[in-house]
Amino acid sequence: MVMSPTATLLLSCPDRPGLVAKIANFIYANGGNIIHADQHTDFATSLFLIRIEWQLQDFNLPQEAIPTAFSAIAKPLEATWQLHFSDTLPRLAIWVTKQDHCLLDLLWRHQAGELRAEIPLIISNHPDLKAIAEQFKIDFYCLPITKTNKLEQENKQLDLLAKYQIDLVVLAKYMQILSADFVAKFPQVINIHHSFLPAFAGAKPYHRAHKRGVKIIGATAHYVTENLDEGPIIEQEVTRVNHRDNPADLIRKGKDLEKLVLARAVRLHLQHRVLVYSNKTVVFN
Amino acid sequence: MVMSPTATLLLSCPDRPGLVAKIANFIYANGGNIIHADQHTDFATSLFLIRIEWQLQDFNLPQEAIPTAFSAIAKPLEATWQLHFSDTLPRLAIWVTKQDHCLLDLLWRHQAGELRAEIPLIISNHPDLKAIAEQFKIDFYCLPITKTNKLEQENKQLDLLAKYQIDLVVLAKYMQILSADFVAKFPQVINIHHSFLPAFAGAKPYHRAHKRGVKIIGATAHYVTENLDEGPIIEQEVTRVNHRDNPADLIRKGKDLEKLVLARAVRLHLQHRVLVYSNKTVVFN
Amino acid sequence: MVMSPTATLLLSCPDRPGLVAKIANFIYANGGNIIHADQHTDFATSLFLIRIEWQLQDFNLPQEAIPTAFSAIAKPLEATWQLHFSDTLPRLAIWVTKQDHCLLDLLWRHQAGELRAEIPLIISNHPDLKAIAEQFKIDFYCLPITKTNKLEQENKQLDLLAKYQIDLVVLAKYMQILSADFVAKFPQVINIHHSFLPAFAGAKPYHRAHKRGVKIIGATAHYVTENLDEGPIIEQEVTRVNHRDNPADLIRKGKDLEKLVLARAVRLHLQHRVLVYSNKTVVFN
Amino acid sequence: MVMSPTATLLLSCPDRPGLVAKIANFIYANGGNIIHADQHTDFATSLFLIRIEWQLQDFNLPQEAIPTAFSAIAKPLEATWQLHFSDTLPRLAIWVTKQDHCLLDLLWRHQAGELRAEIPLIISNHPDLKAIAEQFKIDFYCLPITKTNKLEQENKQLDLLAKYQIDLVVLAKYMQILSADFVAKFPQVINIHHSFLPAFAGAKPYHRAHKRGVKIIGATAHYVTENLDEGPIIEQEVTRVNHRDNPADLIRKGKDLEKLVLARAVRLHLQHRVLVYSNKTVVFN
Repeated sequence: MVMSPTATLLLSCPDRPGLVAKIANFIYANGGNIIHADQHTDFATSLFLIRIEWQLQDFNLPQEAIPTAFSAIAKPLEATWQLHFSDTLPRLAIWVTKQDHCLLDLLWRHQAGELRAEIPLIISNHPDLKAIAEQFKIDFYCLPITKTNKLEQENKQLDLLAKYQIDLVVLAKYMQILSADFVAKFPQVINIHHSFLPAFAGAKPYHRAHKRGVKIIGATAHYVTENLDEGPIIEQEVTRVNHRDNPADLIRKGKDLEKLVLARAVRLHLQHRVLVYSNKTVVFN
Repeated sequence: MVMSPTATLLLSCPDRPGLVAKIANFIYANGGNIIHADQHTDFATSLFLIRIEWQLQDFNLPQEAIPTAFSAIAKPLEATWQLHFSDTLPRLAIWVTKQDHCLLDLLWRHQAGELRAEIPLIISNHPDLKAIAEQFKIDFYCLPITKTNKLEQENKQLDLLAKYQIDLVVLAKYMQILSADFVAKFPQVINIHHSFLPAFAGAKPYHRAHKRGVKIIGATAHYVTENLDEGPIIEQEVTRVNHRDNPADLIRKGKDLEKLVLARAVRLHLQHRVLVYSNKTVVFN
Repeated sequence: MVMSPTATLLLSCPDRPGLVAKIANFIYANGGNIIHADQHTDFATSLFLIRIEWQLQDFNLPQEAIPTAFSAIAKPLEATWQLHFSDTLPRLAIWVTKQDHCLLDLLWRHQAGELRAEIPLIISNHPDLKAIAEQFKIDFYCLPITKTNKLEQENKQLDLLAKYQIDLVVLAKYMQILSADFVAKFPQVINIHHSFLPAFAGAKPYHRAHKRGVKIIGATAHYVTENLDEGPIIEQEVTRVNHRDNPADLIRKGKDLEKLVLARAVRLHLQHRVLVYSNKTVVFN
Repeated sequence: MVMSPTATLLLSCPDRPGLVAKIANFIYANGGNIIHADQHTDFATSLFLIRIEWQLQDFNLPQEAIPTAFSAIAKPLEATWQLHFSDTLPRLAIWVTKQDHCLLDLLWRHQAGELRAEIPLIISNHPDLKAIAEQFKIDFYCLPITKTNKLEQENKQLDLLAKYQIDLVVLAKYMQILSADFVAKFPQVINIHHSFLPAFAGAKPYHRAHKRGVKIIGATAHYVTENLDEGPIIEQEVTRVNHRDNPADLIRKGKDLEKLVLARAVRLHLQHRVLVYSNKTVVFN
């Protein structure tokens, strides 16, 4: 089914009567047809949150005029909002270290049309996965991190993100911690953690899960914040393990979880279905 | 958290621009504050479907005037719609045969406040569960079904549903088939089927699942239609089985599924989250 | 299917060749027919672990003579072992506080024949659930715990366990911590924790899970040790939650998990399928 | 952990006392150390089934002498049995049509060491996936099937299986039905069906699942028999869907299930954990 381009609005603001009407009227008055509207009220914080998507084919306003027009409505509401157009492909950089399973999985899904994005850039702190980048014809930069050069390398990374006009960084088993300064400068980063957070935050989660004797293991995709493994969770998934599974089995089973969870989170983000507030996410799905 | 009463609208109609705006304006113009709005468009049938819930505390219209006022909006849209008020408790009848697990589970959940409804009536074709009805102080009628008296008994059942002003019948392991005529006269019936439909429709699903050697079994809650086990599915759940599980084990594991799935479906229905179209359901959840 | 009585051996010892043969020969030489044998080797600790169950109908040794006869085999192997007979029903005490869902669930399952045990005793630190005990005709003792009387009450509890010849204590939402001294004196205690351990160990797990914004919640049944929430895990289960679920919803969904997980763990224990080693469990299932 | 080679015995025979002892004694008498033993009795058919694995490093018999030696034990038991050695890699052929996801997934897992096998041969009825075969340096044969040439092509396929000494054929989305004659000549074939069998056997399962409005979809890996989609089930997995998922979404979500389920089934087979009887499987896992 070929769809006409759509606009998607993600908005949050203090709750009050008339918010849905105001937004829907703006769209209707300009000739848009809403194809998805999902609204949530967080009563604990009196916050109104909404995702609304409409077809642009008969919309009166040109795309470039919509943000200005809408801000006249949003400003009095003290709203935080984003507006995305389905014919503008987000640009994505994938960061890796040595493990290839999440990288390959993302590239396959991209090739299969599951991820609507451009992927022009792969960055790694090791050279191991260069051949994969070449196979998929994506630029690859190796920026090794030592005890002393992190700040310097982060500056190079930021330069690359700017040069390639990257909208989202996906840490696909990138085994380095980003500095608070980096995250402040480039906050759109999704990470995959190989445990069911908050269980086993930090290093070697599968070995610790094995030692603890858990019956279920998990993986967690979350936005990166300055506090390691504590950012807003986008998606989690789990699978059963038993006494026959040694740490290598947990790692093998966990790889399937990591691939699935990271791909789902990236897809949800690319479809503008994830709204962050209070260090949590609303996933309009 | 004590909530003010709310109104919930479930509506479907042919898709066209302006539908969300029309409905939201009606609510806003009368002083209502929307606390949940979820809209879906079925592109294959060009159908617009929405659930919208708003607080009534400052609403200008009295409850009894809302349907008339809203029908002026709905009529030109050729809409099918229902309007429910949270301070009007739906009245529920539970029908059983001999197995008690779903009945007890529903009554416990009701007692624990999980099901916002009144449950004044239990009907069975056997006397076995009368003591449970008495324990929970619910009227119990035993209407045995033979090869020749079904029509007659269904008339008595319809009389009881009318007398007790029942809104929803829950077949909690009622092992009789309702006639097409009954379903036409009283269409609000939820059934629990002890398989993952459409697998193992009909009789003895656990024995057939065991014979087939499946690795997962399930249960399905659905609205009853004149075609056995083919009504719109509300909820399904599954669990793993293995070669050590004999048919009795499947029945035991299945009972847990049946309880969970039926309770979830009834709760979703009571919260007016289920909209039926094309023999399917949209669950606004 | 009426089964003849069986004997079940749970054994662990240092691994060496010939262990399965030695045990199987003992059973065969005495005329027993093995109906379940499951063996696991933990290579990290070179430990051999086995569950073996055989029919007693043509067994040459009387039940009371089997332990002595078998210890001649077990001793040179430096084995730790238990022997259970299926016609000796374990005796179970359930401890509760104010919440009834796990208690009712266990009693129902017992009534339905899912738990092969006798349940002669309920202990609580509050009087609230006395009526349920009476309904099921089980002796009920209320032993309130204050800041100063814990030791004294634990002595009374131990006396009751001795008087009622209890084999297993099930903490079915008993909201008190057992002292290390109590656990040393009565180590057969199963607890249900309302989180996916090790996530959210300690108090108020559902509120903390909500605050953290997890997408999946869980429950954990484990043997009690002197370290709170750190004993060997028997069973875990999880369910999905989303942004619409407030803490009350997590508690409601969690209750279903708690019931399921605790019942499964108790059933596995009663079937002598759980073997503890290195603060973990092997579940022969 | 480098493991010494092991032997694995899969055996079924009419149940009688002494079977575990007989087998364990054979292994012990020849100096073998059992590292995995799992036995199941099917009471409905009085069948004894066992998987037993032992280390060969100090075993007195050379590998080639073990089958003859063991058959002296197996014959009087009227046993059906297989014996496998871990240092003999099974040889696997993958058959595909146009879809690449299962093929790529299997090849990646093979590369990552998850599947202990050799994969020398890919057969397809279309040329589309030849490039993948070349990338992984695997021989690729395109044998198009028309209405009239099936028998002829099956003979070529059988020749290729013989020439490449193939032990197992994996139908990784091979969209052709094998003839009863082929299956009789080469019975070791695993297929992935894109539904939760027996639901939606046959063609277009995702479209039919969408039309039926199910809330959960699945995939099934099974051995191929002459009756389409009715062979012994090895593994199944499911995932949730909702009203927002159109048939294309079901296909996308289903691909993840197909990959997982097929890979698990192939791995279980390659580890000699699957024993077929009565058109069902025992999975010793």
